[in-house]
Amino acid sequence: MTTLNETHDPHLRSWVETANVAGCDFPIQNLPFAVFRRQGSDEAYRCGVAIGDQVVDLAALAQRSLFSGLAQAALQAAAQDKLNALMALGEPAWAALRLALSRALRTGAPAQASLVECLVPASDVVFDVPARIGDYTDFYTSVHHATNVGKLFRPDNPLLPNYKWVPIGYHGRASSIGVSGQTFTRPKGQIKAPDAEVPVLAASKRVDIELELGIFIGSGNASGDAIDITQAEQHVFGICLLNDWSARDIQAWEYQPLGPFLAKNFATTISPWVVTMEALAPYRVPFVRPSDDPQPLPYLDTAANRQEGAFDIQLQVGLQTPRMRQAGEADASICRTSYSHAYWTIAQLVAHHTVNGCNLQPGDLFGSGTLSGPTPDQAGALIELTTGGKHPLTLPNGERRVFLEDGDAVVLRGWCEKPGAARIGFGACWGTVLPAKP
Amino acid sequence: MTTLNETHDPHLRSWVETANVAGCDFPIQNLPFAVFRRQGSDEAYRCGVAIGDQVVDLAALAQRSLFSGLAQAALQAAAQDKLNALMALGEPAWAALRLALSRALRTGAPAQASLVECLVPASDVVFDVPARIGDYTDFYTSVHHATNVGKLFRPDNPLLPNYKWVPIGYHGRASSIGVSGQTFTRPKGQIKAPDAEVPVLAASKRVDIELELGIFIGSGNASGDAIDITQAEQHVFGICLLNDWSARDIQAWEYQPLGPFLAKNFATTISPWVVTMEALAPYRVPFVRPSDDPQPLPYLDTAANRQEGAFDIQLQVGLQTPRMRQAGEADASICRTSYSHAYWTIAQLVAHHTVNGCNLQPGDLFGSGTLSGPTPDQAGALIELTTGGKHPLTLPNGERRVFLEDGDAVVLRGWCEKPGAARIGFGACWGTVLPAKP
Repeated sequence: MTTLNETHDPHLRSWVETANVAGCDFPIQNLPFAVFRRQGSDEAYRCGVAIGDQVVDLAALAQRSLFSGLAQAALQAAAQDKLNALMALGEPAWAALRLALSRALRTGAPAQASLVECLVPASDVVFDVPARIGDYTDFYTSVHHATNVGKLFRPDNPLLPNYKWVPIGYHGRASSIGVSGQTFTRPKGQIKAPDAEVPVLAASKRVDIELELGIFIGSGNASGDAIDITQAEQHVFGICLLNDWSARDIQAWEYQPLGPFLAKNFATTISPWVVTMEALAPYRVPFVRPSDDPQPLPYLDTAANRQEGAFDIQLQVGLQTPRMRQAGEADASICRTSYSHAYWTIAQLVAHHTVNGCNLQPGDLFGSGTLSGPTPDQAGALIELTTGGKHPLTLPNGERRVFLEDGDAVVLRGWCEKPGAARIGFGACWGTVLPAKP
Repeated sequence: MTTLNETHDPHLRSWVETANVAGCDFPIQNLPFAVFRRQGSDEAYRCGVAIGDQVVDLAALAQRSLFSGLAQAALQAAAQDKLNALMALGEPAWAALRLALSRALRTGAPAQASLVECLVPASDVVFDVPARIGDYTDFYTSVHHATNVGKLFRPDNPLLPNYKWVPIGYHGRASSIGVSGQTFTRPKGQIKAPDAEVPVLAASKRVDIELELGIFIGSGNASGDAIDITQAEQHVFGICLLNDWSARDIQAWEYQPLGPFLAKNFATTISPWVVTMEALAPYRVPFVRPSDDPQPLPYLDTAANRQEGAFDIQLQVGLQTPRMRQAGEADASICRTSYSHAYWTIAQLVAHHTVNGCNLQPGDLFGSGTLSGPTPDQAGALIELTTGGKHPLTLPNGERRVFLEDGDAVVLRGWCEKPGAARIGFGACWGTVLPAKP
């Protein structure tokens, strides 16, 4: 599976000097995609690629005919207000565009003079959701999260018998997916206190986060045609950060027997930047099942998946209360983990989702499910970090939190780094809870 | 709520004579919408309205500027390949277009000469899904279905404590929704026999139907703005038939804890025709809760909803096996019921779905959930009709069925009739199970 090529060379440098700064999320080895427009303008949204602190305006670049062949065709497809057309073109087109952009952005590239006219400072842009998301599916790929939450919802039966066989997933709401910076009002819903006879309609008191990754489908499949696991990753365009906001008190009362609904469909926030599977290739790691767990059924199992089906993406969650914001304090870290702890790989999710013939379409989004790791500080949701609200977190300024309070902002961050490869990042994914409407 | 007007007059007749035939689904009092094109042509899909055995081509009609004001604006919005733009305009525009069409199609209408040029025989058209469905939500509004199925999946706990308080729903798959005539291959999936140690990947042996209605949202709401139950029906464009194909063996193994997924997302079939809420107005009936059941919470309860929030829509399911088809035999009826048995009204579904601020968009689709009535022959799914596969149905030709076999076709039909009002119908909603792929 892994094919590292010249675009991954950690020694590559860009003539955009901010891309060469240590710790930058967007060096020339990354080149993630987003949809943006200039702040305050009334221009149409367009696709862009991050390089250092700049965004390459692909609509502007497409007019310059700097590239040729498949790379230019891919660029034309990206000269639109969403990434769907580029996503639909498939992996060879994505690779051709990446290679052409990498060469044009390198130090000494002859294209620099033309390309520099297509740069927009990232500080001057606003982002939109990067694709028209036809369907959004949320998975449940962390066995640690499933066990931790299962203990709270079903103390006698935390991990259900199907978990280690089935990549559990369910359909989520596409209309309420927003991009970093999203705000939402605290949701109301039916809540039944454990000792109450009847439910009441009230604002949720247990608004939570879920640290997830979002997986954007590129090319789709026809209805009835399963995607074989050996082909599965060719259908994946890239990965973003995803916060699956959840109202735990609404969830507890509504979720049986058909799953979470209003507890989760009021807002889902994703990062603007989609990091491509090709950019992530250096960070593949083996996918290892504990030896006393059942091994995946054959349709979910290949040697390549075992060898390098997982990704070591570092993840972090920060919380910034209104008091911290007023004091000019940055967010406080409340979780650090890695995607490598997931119980199912991306290839397995694609193969499972389509094994019944379900058709995926370009721009469809998968959520990974909350990516809690094996230790308590690696839990990706407050319900786990506070053991169901029983043990508050204490923040550096002395404030305490069980669930989110009005005005709290949460930021997800993700990055990959290791010796011998360029560090790449996902940028930040911010969202803020506003007070419930009266 | 009910405002009957001249368009409902049962004595109205059309110059399209087939609309005046007793038993016709599409008299002048109906005027449902669909998306179609001429069979064998390469023309773009366009919106149409049914009258007798003809379809009014709204794209052709819009060019003739026969109407004025809001009716013409609505017609222009309908001169597209999906109904979304018309849906977004809202109830006054829908009513204006309905009134203008009703007047133009009446016997003696001066517009007849112009309009006749816009008619296409229904036998010459093919249909498409009538709207871009951004999000599809499936509800669970029959307490009889919930109880019958609950007994099979959870014998000790059939009806969960939340059922009589919460209009239970979950998000479904939009990409696999097709229009009448849809075929799909028998889905494969993980199946674990009750006595087996481990699951296997296999073609489903328990492919089932679910008799539902589909509810198309017209105008939407902004994120964070709940739709009050008093305004809820103004956001509903109309109703179609919906078959929620279900693989019961896949469902049983996968559905906990997050709900059905691959058991239902391989195909959902809807009727081409969307009957408007205005056309259905004569068939409103009281919404009555059994007096010993909890009454709905205030956000789900109004006097108007109690007085006439339900609809008496007659429903029927027919099954045609390959042997019947070869013998030239029509489908055999396996279920007869009415939508009036539902435990929650449409207004309640809209109010509940948005109470947390979730944004609905024009073209969103709700499924009603399987509309089983109180008696065994009113059950809208084979799993109920055969008591979990234990008691086969015997068809008129002597064939027996527990679940669907390859080549079986299922048709849903719906209509409204009562003394003093014109009978109106939904047409037919056909779908066929093909053999699993090798």
